[in-house]
Amino acid sequence: MGEAYGYLGPAGTYAEAALLAAVPTDAAALVPFATVPAALAAVRTGEVDAAMIPLENSVEGAVAAAVDGLAVGDRALVISQEIRLPVTFCLASVAGRELSQVRKVAAHPHAEAQTRAWLATHVPQATVVPAASNAAAAIDVVEEQPHAEAAVTSPFAAEVYGLEVLADDIGDTAGAETRCVLVRPAGPPPAPTGADTTTLALFMGDDHPGALLEILTEFAVRGINLTRIESRPTGGRLGSYFFSVDAEGHLLDERMGEALMGLRRVCQDVRYLGSYERSDGATPTLTRRVRDEDYTSARQWLRGLRAD
Amino acid sequence: MGEAYGYLGPAGTYAEAALLAAVPTDAAALVPFATVPAALAAVRTGEVDAAMIPLENSVEGAVAAAVDGLAVGDRALVISQEIRLPVTFCLASVAGRELSQVRKVAAHPHAEAQTRAWLATHVPQATVVPAASNAAAAIDVVEEQPHAEAAVTSPFAAEVYGLEVLADDIGDTAGAETRCVLVRPAGPPPAPTGADTTTLALFMGDDHPGALLEILTEFAVRGINLTRIESRPTGGRLGSYFFSVDAEGHLLDERMGEALMGLRRVCQDVRYLGSYERSDGATPTLTRRVRDEDYTSARQWLRGLRAD
Amino acid sequence: MGEAYGYLGPAGTYAEAALLAAVPTDAAALVPFATVPAALAAVRTGEVDAAMIPLENSVEGAVAAAVDGLAVGDRALVISQEIRLPVTFCLASVAGRELSQVRKVAAHPHAEAQTRAWLATHVPQATVVPAASNAAAAIDVVEEQPHAEAAVTSPFAAEVYGLEVLADDIGDTAGAETRCVLVRPAGPPPAPTGADTTTLALFMGDDHPGALLEILTEFAVRGINLTRIESRPTGGRLGSYFFSVDAEGHLLDERMGEALMGLRRVCQDVRYLGSYERSDGATPTLTRRVRDEDYTSARQWLRGLRAD
Amino acid sequence: MGEAYGYLGPAGTYAEAALLAAVPTDAAALVPFATVPAALAAVRTGEVDAAMIPLENSVEGAVAAAVDGLAVGDRALVISQEIRLPVTFCLASVAGRELSQVRKVAAHPHAEAQTRAWLATHVPQATVVPAASNAAAAIDVVEEQPHAEAAVTSPFAAEVYGLEVLADDIGDTAGAETRCVLVRPAGPPPAPTGADTTTLALFMGDDHPGALLEILTEFAVRGINLTRIESRPTGGRLGSYFFSVDAEGHLLDERMGEALMGLRRVCQDVRYLGSYERSDGATPTLTRRVRDEDYTSARQWLRGLRAD
Repeated sequence: MGEAYGYLGPAGTYAEAALLAAVPTDAAALVPFATVPAALAAVRTGEVDAAMIPLENSVEGAVAAAVDGLAVGDRALVISQEIRLPVTFCLASVAGRELSQVRKVAAHPHAEAQTRAWLATHVPQATVVPAASNAAAAIDVVEEQPHAEAAVTSPFAAEVYGLEVLADDIGDTAGAETRCVLVRPAGPPPAPTGADTTTLALFMGDDHPGALLEILTEFAVRGINLTRIESRPTGGRLGSYFFSVDAEGHLLDERMGEALMGLRRVCQDVRYLGSYERSDGATPTLTRRVRDEDYTSARQWLRGLRAD
Repeated sequence: MGEAYGYLGPAGTYAEAALLAAVPTDAAALVPFATVPAALAAVRTGEVDAAMIPLENSVEGAVAAAVDGLAVGDRALVISQEIRLPVTFCLASVAGRELSQVRKVAAHPHAEAQTRAWLATHVPQATVVPAASNAAAAIDVVEEQPHAEAAVTSPFAAEVYGLEVLADDIGDTAGAETRCVLVRPAGPPPAPTGADTTTLALFMGDDHPGALLEILTEFAVRGINLTRIESRPTGGRLGSYFFSVDAEGHLLDERMGEALMGLRRVCQDVRYLGSYERSDGATPTLTRRVRDEDYTSARQWLRGLRAD
Repeated sequence: MGEAYGYLGPAGTYAEAALLAAVPTDAAALVPFATVPAALAAVRTGEVDAAMIPLENSVEGAVAAAVDGLAVGDRALVISQEIRLPVTFCLASVAGRELSQVRKVAAHPHAEAQTRAWLATHVPQATVVPAASNAAAAIDVVEEQPHAEAAVTSPFAAEVYGLEVLADDIGDTAGAETRCVLVRPAGPPPAPTGADTTTLALFMGDDHPGALLEILTEFAVRGINLTRIESRPTGGRLGSYFFSVDAEGHLLDERMGEALMGLRRVCQDVRYLGSYERSDGATPTLTRRVRDEDYTSARQWLRGLRAD
Repeated sequence: MGEAYGYLGPAGTYAEAALLAAVPTDAAALVPFATVPAALAAVRTGEVDAAMIPLENSVEGAVAAAVDGLAVGDRALVISQEIRLPVTFCLASVAGRELSQVRKVAAHPHAEAQTRAWLATHVPQATVVPAASNAAAAIDVVEEQPHAEAAVTSPFAAEVYGLEVLADDIGDTAGAETRCVLVRPAGPPPAPTGADTTTLALFMGDDHPGALLEILTEFAVRGINLTRIESRPTGGRLGSYFFSVDAEGHLLDERMGEALMGLRRVCQDVRYLGSYERSDGATPTLTRRVRDEDYTSARQWLRGLRAD
């Protein structure tokens, strides 16, 4: 019997598309969840073995529910894999319908915002009705009593719901991407590949000038670059913050291990959220002698001094 | 004739509530805009004198459209004022309706996510229909052909649309806040108050380990604390980033001026986005001698050396 | 048969006084050497088991021959003990002679410089003849054909050479101290005491701005204070430098071990020159969590993450 | 009537040689002083207009009396010029004397230490009598009742005292140099040349870990490299220190001005000790945008923001 994977649903989301790209789907049960917290909770309780959720979107930014949901909670979770997908929008409808016949367009508010120019030009007669997601917009068109004649949705969702694409690539921003991550209960990380990311949540005890500098120095002194950093309010209140960061490197890298120990000593709390291969394969440029072999030779030297 | 103020609409949003708290409304025209980019564009073209937009929400995080919309664009904008409002949700309906009569609840997807537990317990019979905003949810209830018998909305929107509050404070997270900012064309900042924030967008030329450390050092060496930092993809693509930061202090503070000059030299580009009073009145704790008088006396000393 | 100890001679120097304070002298042979390099060479060849040499003097500064002699050479040496002695000068002569009878005073040029005011006031009639050391000055008075009727020397040297003290404490600077160190072939350090110094020579490969900052960051990030730092020309030429430093802590301290490994990676060469108890018993004030137990608990945490 | 220049005497010292290289000597009175403090005192009282003193020697290290004498004292002094001279030793005697006739050699203890190998090989029959300086050693040979038949001295001193060089370049270390500096009452610095040094004494209020790091960060953040750093005991006692540094750049450089103001704020006291051209002409490699034009353009930008 296969594993069960959750994802941010409904069917047809980028999270589902990412999940299909990530796991051997023939043997697995795929379970949609209505929200990111619900998907994470299902991993924590064991209802599913893992869940695919969106973490970051080049247009909308970080998904706060994902960043926060990983950083807190009584059972530790880790990211084991990331999938990046290009974000494109299409206008989709049931077969045979034409643009001129569209009176109402279903769209998630974010999707509407990103396609407004196209809609105003090409379906000026249509009003927009809100949908809860790109996939929900597609559902709104195929239901028995449809809310709309067409949906702003993703090509994947159009396909999932059997819709025909009336117009492709209708977004105002080219090159948008979404980054989904597969989240599991804490466990051994995948082997280092040389092109890895480690995700962390760093809680400062106080907020003095230089607190963030201290944190960054722990990385920089070991030659580790950060590819994402966000301050996030702790406990849902503005004013007290934690830092959500992606760092280049792997838990099993010597430099990352030393940096993590340093952060553990400097921070009030450090939440390790997984080391996993970068989906873009980018390897770090190391400007200092911080490779594993540099650490090994320094450790041997130190051992020699101590044993002398 | 008064000024014209835009805000992220429709009527009844937190942005409108913030605007009413910020400006002398009797003499002003208030203009709702459907999106943050639209509101910012209206300021840039001069259609309105200023616009109130949400920048940050303790639950949902930064508003990417606001962060990005301020950082780019051919006419420089600045924040001149911030307003923080507590975020609470209520269930609102037309007068006389009871909870048991509610079959459909209109809610913005984010609002639904934050009230799901309450809804499941108190209106288990109801289904949720999506709305484009808290205010739109209220509108959905008062239209001639309403989509829903009740709305998850804010107390302010309920009042604006003449709804009766069936249940108050139904959110799952206590203490949530939203931070709205009033944006104007670049101009002289308000006078320093001693409790000010300066907002900046910092573009790095390259992405070497320590690039962020260099930026932070420019602040730290002048004793300036950061209260918010986010890396944001430049141009809507993951991989190339700028930093959006809030720093404690004012453009006219000596230490901030020197830090800005340092950032200008270190960064590829620095976008100054305004100095304005903190709405919570918190003053910075200066652990170094970086007060204006410290700068003045150091400058006098230097002048003496040079003139000697 | 006891150990053989060298010292910077001749008999009567502060180095000898320090050696007598440091070792069980009844069982040991004490061997004077004419120069610091000669004393260090004798340790390297095994002619003596250890040697006491002056390293630093609060008036004259670092003893370059000691700093350089430790930093280079084919057999590694370490400091195993330090002795601090107050530096005072007296005017000494053979028994029965009075101040008014003194026509010539023997004095090392440094000693003359530090007692010039006293000499001008109390023995205005005398001329000063140079001596090679404080001890040599005393010898000049007791020889068969004395060069001088009195010597500016140390109380210890006066006693060693059987001279009578005509005037005590004649130095112009109060509170001067000399710091002598006992140097041995590299070997296991004495056990940590909690009040230890580690002496290092750090060779940079290049000389970019921030090279020294990088070195100091390796210490600071582990909460280690430096109590002495000097740039010294490498190979006797101005322009290329190494750093001679004293750092608070012990080779076996976790924080020092990690700092040493970091320095080893950052520097072209690191010469470990011993960990030893501070003779003034001053313990470091640790402003970060860098105690051994902090490291141990951070390491256990990391091990847990990696094994998960 | 010309200026009066002091120097560390007697006639024939490297300080005199440096002075002759530095000033138009035909119009000036040259006054030898027996000690560095005496030479500095004569500048402070106005007895001489300036004084040439040794500051650093590649073999012996910093001249503590010079470093300390500049850092303290009630009238501020500055270095206005540096002269570097190669240090070589010769054996010199009166005309006609041969090596085999030398029974006693006069030598300053440091000079003896640096020529011991040569002396042992070439004049094994000779004993060494101490002299107060290289010049004094030469004097010892030419006096009416000479102490020695030959002197270890410098070629310049040999010439000054009319001695004949028996053997040249007899030092054990090749490439040694001495660095002398011309000290004046504080006044306007010479114009920047692009290859300048600024000498400073930096007094820290306390001694926390990172105090030195803070100082160095003030330099590094402005791209300024240090070419010499020494911790020196304050007030002649080990334990409390100040830092004597040479920094690349000039008082009138923008980056140096800003660094000096930063140091002034961070340190308990900053003693500016002069900006002057490097005698080796080495220009700094600037790795950051810290040229004057970078500062000017950043300042214009800031002014624009503030005036907006």
